[in-house]
Amino acid sequence: MTIKTVGIMTPGDMGHAIGQRLGEAGIRIVTNLEGRSERSRTLAKKAGIEDLGSDAALLTECDAIFSIMPPDQAGGFVTRMAAAAGTLGTKPKALIADLNAVAPSTARQLQATAEAAGIGFLDGGIIGGPPYPGRPSPRIYLSGPGADSFTALSPALDIRPFGDEIRAASALKMCFATLTKGVQALAIQSFVTAELEGVGPAFRAELESVQANLLRSLAGSLPGMPPKAYRWVGEMEEIAKTYGDAGLTPKTFEGAADIYRFIESTPLGKEVVENRTMGTTLDDLVTRLADALRERRS
Amino acid sequence: MTIKTVGIMTPGDMGHAIGQRLGEAGIRIVTNLEGRSERSRTLAKKAGIEDLGSDAALLTECDAIFSIMPPDQAGGFVTRMAAAAGTLGTKPKALIADLNAVAPSTARQLQATAEAAGIGFLDGGIIGGPPYPGRPSPRIYLSGPGADSFTALSPALDIRPFGDEIRAASALKMCFATLTKGVQALAIQSFVTAELEGVGPAFRAELESVQANLLRSLAGSLPGMPPKAYRWVGEMEEIAKTYGDAGLTPKTFEGAADIYRFIESTPLGKEVVENRTMGTTLDDLVTRLADALRERRS
Repeated sequence: MTIKTVGIMTPGDMGHAIGQRLGEAGIRIVTNLEGRSERSRTLAKKAGIEDLGSDAALLTECDAIFSIMPPDQAGGFVTRMAAAAGTLGTKPKALIADLNAVAPSTARQLQATAEAAGIGFLDGGIIGGPPYPGRPSPRIYLSGPGADSFTALSPALDIRPFGDEIRAASALKMCFATLTKGVQALAIQSFVTAELEGVGPAFRAELESVQANLLRSLAGSLPGMPPKAYRWVGEMEEIAKTYGDAGLTPKTFEGAADIYRFIESTPLGKEVVENRTMGTTLDDLVTRLADALRERRS
Repeated sequence: MTIKTVGIMTPGDMGHAIGQRLGEAGIRIVTNLEGRSERSRTLAKKAGIEDLGSDAALLTECDAIFSIMPPDQAGGFVTRMAAAAGTLGTKPKALIADLNAVAPSTARQLQATAEAAGIGFLDGGIIGGPPYPGRPSPRIYLSGPGADSFTALSPALDIRPFGDEIRAASALKMCFATLTKGVQALAIQSFVTAELEGVGPAFRAELESVQANLLRSLAGSLPGMPPKAYRWVGEMEEIAKTYGDAGLTPKTFEGAADIYRFIESTPLGKEVVENRTMGTTLDDLVTRLADALRERRS
């Protein structure tokens, strides 16, 4: 397969940056902005992404559609594309590369839905941040027959073919996110509770003394989290499903979903990545979340 | 208060090492081995801890009794000492310093039980490993009126008076253990699932590339965990209670308790700290836990 046209659904933080990077490499980048937010329209325009205006057009014009969205929307998107495929009268040209953070079993369900409608399907997982100008590409793992052909998108994107089995890329993503977003969820519990209990300074001093690397890492990562909390809820639920399927407990990540749902509900969770005013340091973040919790309890 | 005699209940890994360190500093160290395991008897003897043979004797002869046991036994112990106090006919000399990993609200309940029986109570929390010969003392935080007088045990033990409020030391311990034992529980989920899904090498490579410090820390700590898993179950439940009380979710740590319960149920969980043959490297630990899970599912 030669890849000349790639659909980006949807052009959010990650999607628009990936689209822009591919566009700069000479790939035609398209999307369907029907019903999308003003923010997605602005990001798409900024990234030079062309609006085809319909799902049917995406299926006939694209070689591949990259699905990049909050994971709780990934299933609805494949169902919608399957419906659009039913209206074409021909086999769709486009395959769907699901790059979302979903459980391996979810990836298999999406594959079944897509293939039943004649749409090819690849399982993907993105590890690393958006490829904003001047930043390296995240690693994009792709599993399934034909994943190899996507290495043609290198070096614009760091594409890593990851075997033929639809589930491997998702499994890797779930395990990796456990030790980043999962650990951050536990850290929020500990920092906010230490603040509420009045033991914050001793807690920090203990961490500085024996967990200095972890503290430094959390101080770097936690302030960036609140505007993304809304889409991490679904990701935590997919990780819970992954571990439930494995015969380990789903509860840890059902709890992590609760934590990000709480953060989403606070004023911090209403901000957007490109315009932050609150919680931009660990101290301010913890103080504001403790205040929000006190308010909720009173 | 002058501290001449200290009771150690019970002389397990942490207790016998603390007792031995205090004994070497000239403090008389006693316990009650009634109904205790052969292992506790051996550890007590090794540490030079004298067996008084009854709870009543502990209450009349000790200045303080250090309660150091799996946290799910902490409540039963205070209830038992309260009953023994009722048989004395005089106010007990000993106070109980509860050094166990319990929720702040649990510490308050224990205080109420002890004080109703005329027994003084301090809330404590131990951060760091046992003070085996040649190793530094863990930090022993003590909250409550009179905690200051325990600094007389320095430098044998690193005692840190931590305010008058019965709950502060426990709160600190719960928050700290979140980022050690809690993170280790999530790590077990991720490593074992990556192994089961056949993506272990790529997972390790990603961690080495962007979470190298965390991977190194986990490779150091996880192999030491299995023989302690049985007593971490109760600690995870106390952390769950702490976060539930705070208005954050208890689920994360109810899940962590499930994970340590699973490990306790495997052959790895039946070993003792001083005689290990299985899971002494991260690779071997993960392989064995994945095998145990496969067996459980089949």
